[in-house]
Amino acid sequence: MAMLEQCLEKNRLYAAQFDRSKLAMPPSKKLAVVACMDARMTVEDFLGLRTGDAHIIRNAGGLVTDDALRSLVISCQLLGTREFFVIEHTDCGMLTFEEADVQAKLSRDTGADASGLKLYPFKDIHANLKAQLRKIRECPFIPADIPAHGLIFHVESGELEQVESI
Amino acid sequence: MAMLEQCLEKNRLYAAQFDRSKLAMPPSKKLAVVACMDARMTVEDFLGLRTGDAHIIRNAGGLVTDDALRSLVISCQLLGTREFFVIEHTDCGMLTFEEADVQAKLSRDTGADASGLKLYPFKDIHANLKAQLRKIRECPFIPADIPAHGLIFHVESGELEQVESI
Repeated sequence: MAMLEQCLEKNRLYAAQFDRSKLAMPPSKKLAVVACMDARMTVEDFLGLRTGDAHIIRNAGGLVTDDALRSLVISCQLLGTREFFVIEHTDCGMLTFEEADVQAKLSRDTGADASGLKLYPFKDIHANLKAQLRKIRECPFIPADIPAHGLIFHVESGELEQVESI
Repeated sequence: MAMLEQCLEKNRLYAAQFDRSKLAMPPSKKLAVVACMDARMTVEDFLGLRTGDAHIIRNAGGLVTDDALRSLVISCQLLGTREFFVIEHTDCGMLTFEEADVQAKLSRDTGADASGLKLYPFKDIHANLKAQLRKIRECPFIPADIPAHGLIFHVESGELEQVESI
């Protein structure tokens, strides 16, 4: 429980200084971001976003999976966002393994059949990022006039690289 | 492009002050967090986490979907995390709609058939949160000795409520 207790202690400080001027449910900047779960990416900080500004959707890789599309559809159709960022990053863990190797290891280690477990590793960040943007554009439930920008965060420098906007 | 340009401008300031002491790829606190995408939740801030500490996985609702499980499996099996938090919150957008209503509206508005589009709204935060913890425990590829803590973030006060640990 040590980690939980540390975070609850930190949260008491956060709550003690909490600004109680009520923020609205819809993001004030009408922005939704899809980004990798990587610990080195503090997304709000490196984009200069404040609490209340944007929806932040994150998963392993920063991929536009079906579940990320579910979140984006809810974001734009129910909560009014009008611009999307997709952010992958250098030195991503997803570049470091083969799906079949991990499936075989998990099957061996756990005794459960992992052969159907999709993990979606990739080899080329730029190509993968562009493919994610296409998945947004092909979703019939996301208006075609919502711009989607693909960016790469450089974990070595903190810099964002603009790759493509569609 | 205004929003993108604003964020790129803010990112230049971030990068100019970036601490280049290299952070490791595995999260230093061995923690993974699943939380809602809600704009009012700046997860790292209200947990007192720093860049490099934890994987952050986020989607509409803070749900342990198949894609969140994919991320958690990668997190613990490949990148060494040993503790999970699942964080839902008060005043969640997912409490405000019926799936069938939104499916019907999207079908009408877009001309594409949205009847199979799963959105996973819910009615009871506590019950929903406990169900998410069970999905972690039932995943054969997540070690049973990784504790999973369910928490509710109160958007009115900034406080975290502990609900269940399994």
